[in-house]
Amino acid sequence: MADLDHTHDPSVRSCVPGADGHPDFPIQNLPFGVFSPEGGGKRIGVAIGDHVLDLAAAQAAGLLTGEAARAVAAAGDGALNGLLALGAGPRRALRAQLFRLLRADGPDRDRVPPLLHAAASCTLHLPARIGDYTDFFVGIHHATNTGRQFRPDQPLLPNYKHVPVGYHGRASSIRPSGTPVRRPHGQAKPPHRDAPVFGPSRRLDYELELGVWIGPGNDLGAPVPVGEADAQIAGFCLLNDWSARDIQGWEYQPLGPFLAKSFATTISPWIVTPEALAPFRVPQAPRPEGDPAPLPYLLDPADQAGGALDLALEIRLSTASSRAAGLAPDVVARSNARHMYWTVAQMVAHHTSGGCNLRPGDLLGTGTLSGPDPESCGSLLETTNGGKAPIRLMSGEERRFLEDGDEVILTARGLRDGFAPIGFGPCRAVVLGAA
Amino acid sequence: MADLDHTHDPSVRSCVPGADGHPDFPIQNLPFGVFSPEGGGKRIGVAIGDHVLDLAAAQAAGLLTGEAARAVAAAGDGALNGLLALGAGPRRALRAQLFRLLRADGPDRDRVPPLLHAAASCTLHLPARIGDYTDFFVGIHHATNTGRQFRPDQPLLPNYKHVPVGYHGRASSIRPSGTPVRRPHGQAKPPHRDAPVFGPSRRLDYELELGVWIGPGNDLGAPVPVGEADAQIAGFCLLNDWSARDIQGWEYQPLGPFLAKSFATTISPWIVTPEALAPFRVPQAPRPEGDPAPLPYLLDPADQAGGALDLALEIRLSTASSRAAGLAPDVVARSNARHMYWTVAQMVAHHTSGGCNLRPGDLLGTGTLSGPDPESCGSLLETTNGGKAPIRLMSGEERRFLEDGDEVILTARGLRDGFAPIGFGPCRAVVLGAA
Repeated sequence: MADLDHTHDPSVRSCVPGADGHPDFPIQNLPFGVFSPEGGGKRIGVAIGDHVLDLAAAQAAGLLTGEAARAVAAAGDGALNGLLALGAGPRRALRAQLFRLLRADGPDRDRVPPLLHAAASCTLHLPARIGDYTDFFVGIHHATNTGRQFRPDQPLLPNYKHVPVGYHGRASSIRPSGTPVRRPHGQAKPPHRDAPVFGPSRRLDYELELGVWIGPGNDLGAPVPVGEADAQIAGFCLLNDWSARDIQGWEYQPLGPFLAKSFATTISPWIVTPEALAPFRVPQAPRPEGDPAPLPYLLDPADQAGGALDLALEIRLSTASSRAAGLAPDVVARSNARHMYWTVAQMVAHHTSGGCNLRPGDLLGTGTLSGPDPESCGSLLETTNGGKAPIRLMSGEERRFLEDGDEVILTARGLRDGFAPIGFGPCRAVVLGAA
Repeated sequence: MADLDHTHDPSVRSCVPGADGHPDFPIQNLPFGVFSPEGGGKRIGVAIGDHVLDLAAAQAAGLLTGEAARAVAAAGDGALNGLLALGAGPRRALRAQLFRLLRADGPDRDRVPPLLHAAASCTLHLPARIGDYTDFFVGIHHATNTGRQFRPDQPLLPNYKHVPVGYHGRASSIRPSGTPVRRPHGQAKPPHRDAPVFGPSRRLDYELELGVWIGPGNDLGAPVPVGEADAQIAGFCLLNDWSARDIQGWEYQPLGPFLAKSFATTISPWIVTPEALAPFRVPQAPRPEGDPAPLPYLLDPADQAGGALDLALEIRLSTASSRAAGLAPDVVARSNARHMYWTVAQMVAHHTSGGCNLRPGDLLGTGTLSGPDPESCGSLLETTNGGKAPIRLMSGEERRFLEDGDEVILTARGLRDGFAPIGFGPCRAVVLGAA
């Protein structure tokens, strides 16, 4: 396992109360984000337990030096693009200095409390200005499940095992966790009608994805070789690619999904770094017997060393009724980030293979990360077989697709013996009725 | 004809030498852009004849007042987003004051020369930071011609006459006219091969489009009604949607074009305003007998008043050999911007109908604007029938698709009796060999 060091030592405790054993943000995580303290403007910070540490304040207090100080200075203006652009060196230095600062036995532990804000009193923002957002389709079970609904005899199209299929998404409508999602109007053609109708989507769905934050980027015309792609990956988040299936089914030929997806995308607001995720890197599963080998430009040397991420993923759903009854959200699916046919490095290499330039703060989505079982489907389209087999919730309600008032909560956690569990923090949003 | 005023008077002459009768930029045009004078930084300017007037310098000289001064101040930093965001009022005020300033008989004509730079000595940049770029498909002849190659019996898909089909494009790789375009590598599956290959595209093509600059934008969840969509349109440019047909054919199912288009998009750098184009607005052609009426949310009240633009479009091609021989570029197609099945207002209304937000400086492409005749095709895919019928150039060379060294030059001109002709300036780029 590459790149494990003292910052992954599970025995290290934090000086911040509540951080040890925190489900998402123990001292072994330290994800970066942008927050506003109550009544204040945007600031860059790091999550520690139920608190946010103000990075600019730490800088001003002289607690960061060298490359770490440079990383904080580069971000500066309430977005992390400048920090992401610097790449792994300054990011690692910053994480290492924060780890030292926040240790229970750290020399500066008494200087930490004034830098902390209670997370519950903060507003979290998008962590970076997203120049371009690209969504891939590397969840092979999702591709198979959804393909089967249209082509029972040939669920996967001929290009799937050769091309990391992706498409351009909409950057302007990406919002951080907690922002409600308005049910979109749109055109759809119900099967029993001769002509399309316009109205609120009746087949609103979620999609469970990971998001990938791009670091330094590349110049136009200068592809990133797959062996160097890891250096472009600045971190990860959860991503809910909300989808209006009725709009999608009618609009998507021949140029792909458009308004069915662009009304909203929700992401978890913390950038979980490759460094924090190092313990959870695992070898990419070998391709099934008979599958074609990737073309040379996609042969990922990290495949076997740790091209995949072992992260437990969960989708929970609460409804207006279930909340009123005091019920906990229903777990509607459990999956894992290992269910990718292509690695993130392969996505980056493919994306840039024709010369397309990535910029710091660009966001990639993996595509829906369904597992092989019905209980591990990352979308209701799959779970309910296109709405034909509703799921039953603890409240007694049924769901074929999302209804107004439903809240969807995505979580991701790294769990490995001998390491502190870490999480991404929730990616959640409630569905509002159409305007 | 709406919105015609003294700024459209063809008898008005300019104090700037060479502006009168200039094919693109007489005083009746006055498009906005961003330029660098020789050795200088980015500045905002307006094109007049073969010169660029420095708007900040005009402002500093006290030559702009009120809303016009506010428009220049809003842009400020070398990109026009802030000006676009203000909408039609300040933009019109600025245009009107510049018209007055640049008249041959204007009271301040003696103060103009110090504000001018020779265009030939300036570098032109993208006029705005492009947040998101969306490409539509409203050229019905293009949709029919290309669809026929795949589906001879059903060239247009069932949704075409109901939905202004569009997809998200790549913003990061948009470049201003003059930036060379590197032939991309990519995956393709030649028909005679069982497996895909990776290499330089062998079917590189251009696409003739108009670009549409978005003005104020809308909030997420707040659709723009079609009757209010014109207020979102801040201007127009030419757009070459370079396309690698072999990559496109293999990658595009099921999520649409991706790397086949994202290696480069070239635009003309001047924002030609709706005000300058007012004389060339014409009624949208009635839909052919039997076509469905647009759904109510797409019923454009401006259709009959002037929902279409009558602009003569031209594609010219020069090759390395033809340039060496001193030959003028070949005209390979002549078309018109009237060949849109949907108006720009309908594109805006559709784009936002589900709540998707547009931001100032977003760019829309119309899709390829082919005419009905073989000589009016906006792509080589159409002109050569997928490469089967090469065109012959004046140099004696043939072209099925683009070769290295080829330069593609798009032009657009408004021509109407009783008005000064105006143009967009060229949208040109030369193809470089694959790296």
